[in-house]
Amino acid sequence: MNILVLNCGSSSVKYQLIDVDKRAFLAKGSVERVGMSGAVLTNLRADGDEIKISGDILDHTMAIEYILAVLLSKNHGVITTKDEIHAVGHRVVHGGETFTGSVMIDDAVIKGIRDNFEIAPLHNPHNLRGITACQTHLPNIPQAGVFDTAFHHEIPPHAYIYGIPYSLYTQYKIRRYGFHGTSHAFVAQRAAELMKKDLKKLKVITCHLGNGCSMAAIDKGVSIDTSMGFTPLEGLLMGTRSGDIDTSVILYVMAKEGLNYSEANTLLNKHSGLQGISGVSSDMREIITEMNSGNKKAKLAFDVFCYRVKKYIGSYVAALGGLDALVFTGGIGENAPDVRKAICENLECFGIELDKQANSSKEKEKAITSGKGSATVFVIPTNEELMIAMETKDVVKGSKKK
Amino acid sequence: MNILVLNCGSSSVKYQLIDVDKRAFLAKGSVERVGMSGAVLTNLRADGDEIKISGDILDHTMAIEYILAVLLSKNHGVITTKDEIHAVGHRVVHGGETFTGSVMIDDAVIKGIRDNFEIAPLHNPHNLRGITACQTHLPNIPQAGVFDTAFHHEIPPHAYIYGIPYSLYTQYKIRRYGFHGTSHAFVAQRAAELMKKDLKKLKVITCHLGNGCSMAAIDKGVSIDTSMGFTPLEGLLMGTRSGDIDTSVILYVMAKEGLNYSEANTLLNKHSGLQGISGVSSDMREIITEMNSGNKKAKLAFDVFCYRVKKYIGSYVAALGGLDALVFTGGIGENAPDVRKAICENLECFGIELDKQANSSKEKEKAITSGKGSATVFVIPTNEELMIAMETKDVVKGSKKK
Repeated sequence: MNILVLNCGSSSVKYQLIDVDKRAFLAKGSVERVGMSGAVLTNLRADGDEIKISGDILDHTMAIEYILAVLLSKNHGVITTKDEIHAVGHRVVHGGETFTGSVMIDDAVIKGIRDNFEIAPLHNPHNLRGITACQTHLPNIPQAGVFDTAFHHEIPPHAYIYGIPYSLYTQYKIRRYGFHGTSHAFVAQRAAELMKKDLKKLKVITCHLGNGCSMAAIDKGVSIDTSMGFTPLEGLLMGTRSGDIDTSVILYVMAKEGLNYSEANTLLNKHSGLQGISGVSSDMREIITEMNSGNKKAKLAFDVFCYRVKKYIGSYVAALGGLDALVFTGGIGENAPDVRKAICENLECFGIELDKQANSSKEKEKAITSGKGSATVFVIPTNEELMIAMETKDVVKGSKKK
Repeated sequence: MNILVLNCGSSSVKYQLIDVDKRAFLAKGSVERVGMSGAVLTNLRADGDEIKISGDILDHTMAIEYILAVLLSKNHGVITTKDEIHAVGHRVVHGGETFTGSVMIDDAVIKGIRDNFEIAPLHNPHNLRGITACQTHLPNIPQAGVFDTAFHHEIPPHAYIYGIPYSLYTQYKIRRYGFHGTSHAFVAQRAAELMKKDLKKLKVITCHLGNGCSMAAIDKGVSIDTSMGFTPLEGLLMGTRSGDIDTSVILYVMAKEGLNYSEANTLLNKHSGLQGISGVSSDMREIITEMNSGNKKAKLAFDVFCYRVKKYIGSYVAALGGLDALVFTGGIGENAPDVRKAICENLECFGIELDKQANSSKEKEKAITSGKGSATVFVIPTNEELMIAMETKDVVKGSKKK
């Protein structure tokens, strides 16, 4: 079963055509600079064939038209008719309290996604554009929505209610939602497989450390807490996001610098995090390079980043009442042994004892603990697209049974 | 040595005259509604004699005049001349980065306290009023300043730097300071005494749970992290303060409700916390009563409160790399066994095993663990006034040696 997975951002469309039964992609790529000058489509076929196409790609509909043309093209394509795409799976960022799992797209679902525009103005409108574009170009092919928030929908009220007037929850739906759910779910499941244990019997903490960073406490397969909240700003230090701060700080800065809430939001989302502390880069690779050549602020950014993850590990061990597995994933989680080492240092009290050699080995998927401690630490490459494809398959099959 | 300890708030002056060598108060009390109609001085003598005096007490100078008059009075007093007050110890909330320990008050110190008005506008100006009043009424008696922040001054940069542009630290001194330092220091020291161990060899977490709530991670006697930050808003859920939230939340509410930063500050400091969630009360005693009669929002407020403390315990175990002692203090910490029980539940992974009977016994200072776990949990009544008196004695003696 071939599933086209789409992830539509404000000016980009990422895609993968996946043979879900073989767990393998046929082709994948992205369109960048949608609606801007110099838009580019990059396509990589599973056999290594790669092309770039430049053009005036004015909107998401046109981007998807380009993507389909490439997938169908004689020289660079992987299918001969649109019917070889059996379903489309859309990443939708915010399911709010409406969507607790993946769903077939219909008018009610579209309305639900639209209703959540207000709490996810940076993401949901673009996700929906992808959906309507597919309704135009692939009218007879079933579509599913897979929500970043859905995996976290069982988080209990004591973990999702903020300490603010309760009316702000009832009136504006302000609560912790959490994101990266597809990634957390995927790597937790994979950790259980690698341990040859049932996820339903495990206490797992997952660390998705990429440009955005979040963690989840997963008890018996259920997310019971996560570090991102109402928005992706909360929690860990990220590339350009502050993560947790004393809220008074931003109010103080607004007063001092005469910022409005929109400027304050930009400051915290775009100019903070690794970039803000180091003044050097939002990219952990550059932070580490700078740190190793003696840049003190890069070292500070690195230390703050790792210390925050360490503290969240502790708080989630407390929430779970123990720990069986800790999983690192995402660009930083998968590729920065120094970060993993700094985080796990001095956590023997949680049964974590890193195997230095395993931690720095080239293997992509691996356990990196010595086996002496009671917890296993894993590095597991995330594969959100495959997870979306698998979810989409389930939803489509389920809907056909009805 | 008799030391007058003063804690001056916006409209109140709390005091204790303490015989520091006997660790006992001679008299204690407060003036409430300073500068408002119906001001009242309440004085309690160690022998139980209690009086209330009403009057027009226009400012802090006048309040201190009243206090001295009572301490010297024939029928209700405890001293016969002012010279029997050997020193005055002032609680000063914010020492900023200027004050890393208690100091003798002089012109430079007064300037330092004034320089921190900007980051502690609700506290430092009132603290300073108390100091200048004593300079007027007790001109020949040495005075010391004891800072709420000082105990936390060794917190390392990776724990005190926020994930925002570094220039906001250099320009505005925005960083984690932490408060309740005198209380955290006092109960940590007392825990070590009760364990008959050297605090310098212990990993201790202290929970000061009162109307304001904060926690500290204390490694070898040094505070290495604390939950309050740039201001007392950050961290745990409190009576009317939100503690940690996604900062986007307040920016969203400001946008929705057209609040300015000052109104936002009031919302988070005065209308949030236990009060905000429950809609019932900011007082944990009333929350528990309501919860026990079936009020679901009171139950939710209770649960959020306890869950937050539990998570901070975990994060501080991670920061410390282990745990020897956990201490509860403050109005809630000392008097709410249900809160302690809920917090410590399911924390056997940290070596915490509560003794139910000890937890609910009437004893004021006690260990409440079974002895089976590796960590000891204590309830220790805080005594910030005694701590300020002891600090004051040290500072005064130190200054005389010079």
